[in-house]
Amino acid sequence: MFKRITIIGLGLIGGSLGLAIKRKRLARNVVGVSRRKTTIRSALSLRTVDSATLDLAKGVKDADLVILTAPVLTIINIARRISKHLKKGAIVIDAGSTKKNIVKKVEAVLPRGASFIGSHPIAGSEKSGVMYADRNLFKGARCILTKTSRTDSKALGKVKRFWAGLGMKVEIMTPDKHDKSISKVSHLPHAVSAALVNSCNKKDLHLAAGGFKDTTRIASGSPELWKDIFLTNRQNVLSDIKIFKRELSKIEKALKKASSEELLRLLKKAKSVRDSI
Amino acid sequence: MFKRITIIGLGLIGGSLGLAIKRKRLARNVVGVSRRKTTIRSALSLRTVDSATLDLAKGVKDADLVILTAPVLTIINIARRISKHLKKGAIVIDAGSTKKNIVKKVEAVLPRGASFIGSHPIAGSEKSGVMYADRNLFKGARCILTKTSRTDSKALGKVKRFWAGLGMKVEIMTPDKHDKSISKVSHLPHAVSAALVNSCNKKDLHLAAGGFKDTTRIASGSPELWKDIFLTNRQNVLSDIKIFKRELSKIEKALKKASSEELLRLLKKAKSVRDSI
Repeated sequence: MFKRITIIGLGLIGGSLGLAIKRKRLARNVVGVSRRKTTIRSALSLRTVDSATLDLAKGVKDADLVILTAPVLTIINIARRISKHLKKGAIVIDAGSTKKNIVKKVEAVLPRGASFIGSHPIAGSEKSGVMYADRNLFKGARCILTKTSRTDSKALGKVKRFWAGLGMKVEIMTPDKHDKSISKVSHLPHAVSAALVNSCNKKDLHLAAGGFKDTTRIASGSPELWKDIFLTNRQNVLSDIKIFKRELSKIEKALKKASSEELLRLLKKAKSVRDSI
Repeated sequence: MFKRITIIGLGLIGGSLGLAIKRKRLARNVVGVSRRKTTIRSALSLRTVDSATLDLAKGVKDADLVILTAPVLTIINIARRISKHLKKGAIVIDAGSTKKNIVKKVEAVLPRGASFIGSHPIAGSEKSGVMYADRNLFKGARCILTKTSRTDSKALGKVKRFWAGLGMKVEIMTPDKHDKSISKVSHLPHAVSAALVNSCNKKDLHLAAGGFKDTTRIASGSPELWKDIFLTNRQNVLSDIKIFKRELSKIEKALKKASSEELLRLLKKAKSVRDSI
């Protein structure tokens, strides 16, 4: 599908992408770029990429597809730094969890002749690092691609085939719609999960069982990654926190009144929505 | 260990207890009691108990150990109804998720010569019904037993050996301490998880991935069961909701100010506590 794919950032996502691309034979050659020598050594020894370099310019040279995997704000920075080294006709994609900010800024810095398609493969883990790279990470999961007035439809089609080639179910929407939807099902839960853990002291936790562990698993995610996600989707997350607080207050009020009927109603509603997934 | 054990309530917990007791040979004879004929049929066909009856009085006759598994408020009702049918020297235990209310009320209704040891095996699932009965449900999990001024220490010792015999790690504490600790790691997370689901519409959920599913799994739990848990641990849950809201407001404020440092600090704190489990 591509002669050369360059993956910038060799963490859980970058490493898993390398393994999956090689497995599915979507590129003749996969190049990795990382800031750290130790990461390059691990990435090479795990065969996540065919070759790797510390040098961004060298890394993206001759690449048909460049994939930016990094915290959101870093993605934007990297796009700036690689823009003048891209080959004509190169397609650039990312794997960031917010889209509006990234798409706007990256579209603005890329040269004519290069296309950017914002991508969000909804797959991941609370773990980070290339040592957790998993070639099946993307299989069966959804991937959202964004479309704007500047989107090149040929590039969009090719990128769609790329993610579908990794086994993902691809959906296309505006960056705005993406950020609104994902705030509810991913960013709000993360904020709530972190607040839940922060409500506990370590000494409370020896009685924690499956329920607590599941509810708070995502709070183990990378703070650096999540800080950028929150900062670039602030308004949606703030508005969803408001909605959430209203829902929690309903439960609180039912408890204060010791209202059996109201508690039952709220719990039944939650069960019905949750069971529908 | 016991000649006859009677399990009242043949749901996920009652059924799993029956299977585990028979597997570990902790009783010569296991009797089940349920309100429903269909449940009795399922319980017998799954061999969770040796025999079963719809009749509480008949069910507890000659039982050395009676286990009450039902929603918390129902446990208290059943204790009232069986008290005059218990054999002298019978030990009664329960499997309810709150303890102060149950222990106080059940201790008050049981006759002299019968002992009550409040028990909370911290094992379960969002699923309910005897068809999910699992003989390994209790293995390796914690079980809290309560001790009060009225607790018979011989009975306590025997009940401790019983739960340990099912592979559980037994801890003894006051009902009050139990309810406080469990509120934080189980009841608060449940309230938060339900509110999180209630913040979403069904149409938002097609993009929900692992993070959302884990965070909200417990919201699929039985509303009837949880309504009683909340009602009998109101004060602790209300005070923990207050603490939680304060923590969520910290995240909210950091977002409003777009404070990278403050967000990072809160997310790092959460990660460090969560990673310590």
